[in-house]
Amino acid sequence: MNAAETVYLDHNASTPILPAAFEAMLPFLREGYANPSAIHVAGENLRRVLEEAREVIAGLLGARPAEICFSSGATEAINQALRGVLEARPRRRKLVISAAEHAATRDVAAQLERRGHPVQVVPVDARGELDEDELDAALDDEAAILSLLWVNNETGVVTDVARHGRLAHERGVVFHVDAAQKVGKGMPALGDLPIDLLSFSAHKFGGPKGVGALYVRRGVSLRPLIWGAHHEGGRRGGTENLPGIVGMAVALEQAVAAWPVESRRLRALRDAFEAALRADHPDMLVNGAGAPRNENTLNVAFRGIEGHGVVLRLAQRGVYCSSGSACTAHDPGPSHVLAAMGLPGDHIHGALRFSLGAGVTVEGLARTRLLVGEAVAALAGQGS
Amino acid sequence: MNAAETVYLDHNASTPILPAAFEAMLPFLREGYANPSAIHVAGENLRRVLEEAREVIAGLLGARPAEICFSSGATEAINQALRGVLEARPRRRKLVISAAEHAATRDVAAQLERRGHPVQVVPVDARGELDEDELDAALDDEAAILSLLWVNNETGVVTDVARHGRLAHERGVVFHVDAAQKVGKGMPALGDLPIDLLSFSAHKFGGPKGVGALYVRRGVSLRPLIWGAHHEGGRRGGTENLPGIVGMAVALEQAVAAWPVESRRLRALRDAFEAALRADHPDMLVNGAGAPRNENTLNVAFRGIEGHGVVLRLAQRGVYCSSGSACTAHDPGPSHVLAAMGLPGDHIHGALRFSLGAGVTVEGLARTRLLVGEAVAALAGQGS
Repeated sequence: MNAAETVYLDHNASTPILPAAFEAMLPFLREGYANPSAIHVAGENLRRVLEEAREVIAGLLGARPAEICFSSGATEAINQALRGVLEARPRRRKLVISAAEHAATRDVAAQLERRGHPVQVVPVDARGELDEDELDAALDDEAAILSLLWVNNETGVVTDVARHGRLAHERGVVFHVDAAQKVGKGMPALGDLPIDLLSFSAHKFGGPKGVGALYVRRGVSLRPLIWGAHHEGGRRGGTENLPGIVGMAVALEQAVAAWPVESRRLRALRDAFEAALRADHPDMLVNGAGAPRNENTLNVAFRGIEGHGVVLRLAQRGVYCSSGSACTAHDPGPSHVLAAMGLPGDHIHGALRFSLGAGVTVEGLARTRLLVGEAVAALAGQGS
Repeated sequence: MNAAETVYLDHNASTPILPAAFEAMLPFLREGYANPSAIHVAGENLRRVLEEAREVIAGLLGARPAEICFSSGATEAINQALRGVLEARPRRRKLVISAAEHAATRDVAAQLERRGHPVQVVPVDARGELDEDELDAALDDEAAILSLLWVNNETGVVTDVARHGRLAHERGVVFHVDAAQKVGKGMPALGDLPIDLLSFSAHKFGGPKGVGALYVRRGVSLRPLIWGAHHEGGRRGGTENLPGIVGMAVALEQAVAAWPVESRRLRALRDAFEAALRADHPDMLVNGAGAPRNENTLNVAFRGIEGHGVVLRLAQRGVYCSSGSACTAHDPGPSHVLAAMGLPGDHIHGALRFSLGAGVTVEGLARTRLLVGEAVAALAGQGS
């Protein structure tokens, strides 16, 4: 395949690494071979690099360095947050989540429920927004922790974390935010938000795979998920993935610096692409259309068309998107997010997610528009 | 510092990455940016690479591909093994370990004990070898899992895993082996050994940091540690660290191929270095001397000399070793391994670990010998 013909529209699944992040990793991958926990000079130098990366990341998020606990990615961080708080708060045993959470959170919730923890799932409305009355009722004396996606990975719908976090805090409930789709895409300082814990992965904002972090606000107590030795202030055992952590810090620095301009560019591209598809397909649904959506995501549905079939046809022509979350792509069922929004079944199966990022151009989206038109026409013909 | 003057003798803490492993990672770090779980062509190609790496690693270990579960490193794998088995075997609640385990295992054991699991610690003798009578007594009807280091990270003492594993199996006890210091250093096929679970990290054999695996013999049931979606056959959630996994596979391939020659080279170097130090310091102790030791490790003690002080003096001259495990290097107490071996206190504090690897030469060790002599003389003068 000619690389010039590739149009990558699956940035919510994973992003290309930023060249500066890649370059920054190389010395630590190739030469920085000591163990950052060793007491000799080589180890101490690496420890300094590790702590500098922690300071950079904390500074960009408006947090303190000691509040950043490195992990292997958002999934580990989500596990650590939810289970760590429930273990540290034996008097309150309930987990509260929304019906539109990522599979990682849903799976943690299902496992906790099997172990006897009450789990309350707050419904979302047709736009993908949380039902506030139900949330209000869920945050009772039994609730230990509320966990919400900041930006929905499938629809791009943005949750009002400040509002929900304030309510959680009024009720004495710890608030965890899955910010995998938000970190690096413009956010207020964490110190100013009613957020206690926040999870993210580097590979969602131009960093490498296999590394992420959990923000743990000072004073929030939680138990470690991975036990072992003294690493990460006793919060996470294991030799630190220094190249990955350095790559994450540089990627976040660049993503944050680029965002004021990049967010406008992506919003303009996404809105024009959405309008063009709507012009071609008047009965197309835009999932989450009525809610605030982030700049880079467009989730659409064509009545009676299998989204999976469109994804495969586009991929054959070098255009990469998805029919939902990559993390459940091999799951044959319809999207739980769209089902929770109450969409009609023939639209859920047609769902198609385009998630934009740095390399996306007007030309690439014009080509995608044409290929979507061809795919929908071909598949509609098959179905009739 | 002149790189030519650096002598790195801390391979049990972490190893330099092998050039071929580094090169193999680059395409997946730089260009393979899709998510291996995505259903489009880019994702499917990465999934194929992931499964090929799994086949390579399984083949080198004498295991089946489905028995390899990738992780962020040995510490995560140890947590998964010990806690996963205890959760899956509610009728047997006891964990059995030796007194010479790595901090990761000790910390998991301490946490499990706090949660009400009986933990039985089998003593080791003065050579660092397991007390077989005590092991025999510990493996009772209450024992769920036995966990042993294959090669001790501090002393290099080799455990007879075949013998202890057979006993565990006779008693219906699951056997986990922490093989962080053994994988890549010559081992029989796992299929031929009475081992149910085996943990390792890539950065101990020339691969990158932040990646490792847990071998789970077919039929052994254990619960996941990190919940989320379908990754790793439902055994471990999170987007796969593909560059790291590819680097690990290539590093293991090279390490295994090199071992027959490299092991003889390291043993000759280590034995000559040990003899030279003994000639210089007749009252030097070699920890683990009476037991089978692996080829690359030498742990010595000079009476009345602080090992920490020697490490720092050597490091100032570009020679890197350690006074024990890197993972507890910032812990001021004496080595628990040497304490368990019943060494006199004035020898424990003097312990110094030299762990050899690919780049170590006769010249580097000759220089180290001189610097050790200078350091011991200087520190002995201070102490008197």
